[in-house]
Amino acid sequence: MKVPRPPRGFRDFPPDRMILRKRLFSVLEETFQKYGFDPIDTPAVEYWETLAGKYGEEAENRLIWRFQDPWSGREYALRYDLTVPLARFIANHRDLPMPFKRYHIGPVWRHEEPQRGRYREFYQCDADIVGSPYPEADAEIIELTIDALKALGFKTGFKVRLNDRRLLRGIFEQELELSNPLPVYRAIDKLDKIGLDGVVGELRKINLEENKIEKIKNIISIKGTSDEILDSVLSKYKNNKLIVEAVDHLRTIVELVDMDEYVEIDMSLVRGLDYYTGPIVEVVLERPRIGSVAGGGRYDTLIGMFIGQDIPATGVSIGIERIIDAGIELGIYSLSKKTLTEAQVIVLDRNHYDYAWQVTRRLRKAGLNTRIDLSRASHRVQRRKAQRLGIKYLVFIGEKEAVNRKVTIYDTETGDRWEVELDHIDKIFHK
Amino acid sequence: MKVPRPPRGFRDFPPDRMILRKRLFSVLEETFQKYGFDPIDTPAVEYWETLAGKYGEEAENRLIWRFQDPWSGREYALRYDLTVPLARFIANHRDLPMPFKRYHIGPVWRHEEPQRGRYREFYQCDADIVGSPYPEADAEIIELTIDALKALGFKTGFKVRLNDRRLLRGIFEQELELSNPLPVYRAIDKLDKIGLDGVVGELRKINLEENKIEKIKNIISIKGTSDEILDSVLSKYKNNKLIVEAVDHLRTIVELVDMDEYVEIDMSLVRGLDYYTGPIVEVVLERPRIGSVAGGGRYDTLIGMFIGQDIPATGVSIGIERIIDAGIELGIYSLSKKTLTEAQVIVLDRNHYDYAWQVTRRLRKAGLNTRIDLSRASHRVQRRKAQRLGIKYLVFIGEKEAVNRKVTIYDTETGDRWEVELDHIDKIFHK
Repeated sequence: MKVPRPPRGFRDFPPDRMILRKRLFSVLEETFQKYGFDPIDTPAVEYWETLAGKYGEEAENRLIWRFQDPWSGREYALRYDLTVPLARFIANHRDLPMPFKRYHIGPVWRHEEPQRGRYREFYQCDADIVGSPYPEADAEIIELTIDALKALGFKTGFKVRLNDRRLLRGIFEQELELSNPLPVYRAIDKLDKIGLDGVVGELRKINLEENKIEKIKNIISIKGTSDEILDSVLSKYKNNKLIVEAVDHLRTIVELVDMDEYVEIDMSLVRGLDYYTGPIVEVVLERPRIGSVAGGGRYDTLIGMFIGQDIPATGVSIGIERIIDAGIELGIYSLSKKTLTEAQVIVLDRNHYDYAWQVTRRLRKAGLNTRIDLSRASHRVQRRKAQRLGIKYLVFIGEKEAVNRKVTIYDTETGDRWEVELDHIDKIFHK
Repeated sequence: MKVPRPPRGFRDFPPDRMILRKRLFSVLEETFQKYGFDPIDTPAVEYWETLAGKYGEEAENRLIWRFQDPWSGREYALRYDLTVPLARFIANHRDLPMPFKRYHIGPVWRHEEPQRGRYREFYQCDADIVGSPYPEADAEIIELTIDALKALGFKTGFKVRLNDRRLLRGIFEQELELSNPLPVYRAIDKLDKIGLDGVVGELRKINLEENKIEKIKNIISIKGTSDEILDSVLSKYKNNKLIVEAVDHLRTIVELVDMDEYVEIDMSLVRGLDYYTGPIVEVVLERPRIGSVAGGGRYDTLIGMFIGQDIPATGVSIGIERIIDAGIELGIYSLSKKTLTEAQVIVLDRNHYDYAWQVTRRLRKAGLNTRIDLSRASHRVQRRKAQRLGIKYLVFIGEKEAVNRKVTIYDTETGDRWEVELDHIDKIFHK
């Protein structure tokens, strides 16, 4: 008999994984809320035309899970990220007070070739500010991201890379007059993986002129503090309006955030999605080298694609799946917690099951996550199962306990064992 | 310009709705955990063959969102409930300690005709016990259900109806020798809506013999306490093994739960899904009359469809969408909370924005959900927006506050206004 599996690239989460995931989602939610973001939800399914033309060619032609309703013939798609649905949401809810700050934690679907750390269904954890064109909003997103990483247990060992689409456009499209900058961006984006010589090699492969390659090389290898890099870029292109505007914007962000230990301007940062228009960010861990664990930026024209009038917006998406994988690898997270159950009622004598049932009710009422034997197992088996799951309290119910309306409690962590009157259980365990 | 909407039958949840939903999901989670259930998750997408042949004809041919991967040609489906995915999960995780108690809160998709209270995407909140054939497990599911409804704010005004598929099979298929009982079940299931005469009318329409109609009428109109109904059924069919077994099983459940004010045996309860094999339950509210708000039962052969060897299981699905709709209608729930933000920093003087930014950080660090102006709005506008959202604390930052490193706090609920040193903020707000 062939047992069906989850579809390729999709995953089941048993309790040990799910307990960890839920804890991390809570940490993120608390952080989002602390920064004044409120939750929203949107459907998993959108009309195809909502997603079409927003993400770029590869996503559109290959990566979006697209399907046709066999009855109506209507084209649908599973959501590809949480940003385009947010833009559609804003377009449908024009009465929301601005700036509108929302967070959204939920699954998205991509038709990727599954591999280590890459799934076809994965959660994104997004926070976005809609309605402010100012660097304050971008700065808040960056502070939130740093705080979220810290709250998730990554105290150091990560960097927030910051660039601006206007710098890319100003330098590569206006100043270097590249008519087709996309392959150049793609090459630059690999700097981390293939090094400066690798990038130069790639640029030669696309037959870029040597003098332009030289200029690109200079730009992407500027090193220094954020201020130094911005000064250097500005000195090179101080007559380009777009570049001046971007440098100004980035400088205000960096000054407000004021955390040079985390934030660095990175002239090689590109990011894949089409819809960014201003500052872009990416968070990378020092180790393991698993690519970025968060990314985002400003997209001032995306909502306008729906309503014909631009509304500025900026945000970040925290890649919780990679963070979980990395955290487990680094030993920051463990899967040792197999149950949330705190007490197991062990039935020593089936004649007193009714009493054990009452005790279970009382323990639950006292706020203790409690199980009782449901399998008519021997007390040895009941005990072994509870211990295998790491349940802290064993609560024994036999003849003696039933007759005296007591319970015998064994704390598996301390080794303490004591008898309590049933009527006093609430006082002992009440949290 | 045509603004795209969420697909028909799908919904957006703005913060006010989402804040309510999240609170109710938390209430349910806490209840599930108190009863010793642990969380799992499974994919939204399953292979079509996983869902095929499990739910009955209507679901299979009309209601499951089924689609083909345009690249591989492989057939997929969006999950239709959380029970069949659980069965597949168990089949894939044979090393789980039994009984396995899991809860699962997540969306499911049905290709229904959208109407009031009926959506194409909706959340289910399920708790199931896998591995126990005993009535203790069913009893625990029923107690959990009652407790969950109470925790959700429905102190009274609901009933748990209980029947058993073996009674239906024993009475209608074995004793009454109906070769095609499905139309009869469908008629009986409408008792609530169309009354006894209505059911009789339906049975005549399908040309059932009058003596059988008379017997069916007698069965489904038995009234009394659970014990009286079970006695009455048993006295009629005491030689039918299946019926005796079911009566016995139900009696143990009713005795353990021992809550006649909530639980009633209902011989007209059928439930739609194919996979039930034993006790079945349904929860109905007295008002509003919106159909059942929870339902479940025992399905001892479903997992066996995947692994060729039966594993007993029983569970309940709490219909949170109908509960929310009903709760709002009854005034138990409100949508008045528009934000989780507790404090708004009002910038009186933009020259001191840096100081306001520091204050915001400190408030967040103290655990207060805090916003700061990101729109360079006048202080009047900042204030109006905060009040429109119902934010409790307004924290004013102007020249005076910046120079003295203080903040002025205004409590919009009490009307109190006071000045605090920045360094003492933590002490005031720390939770």
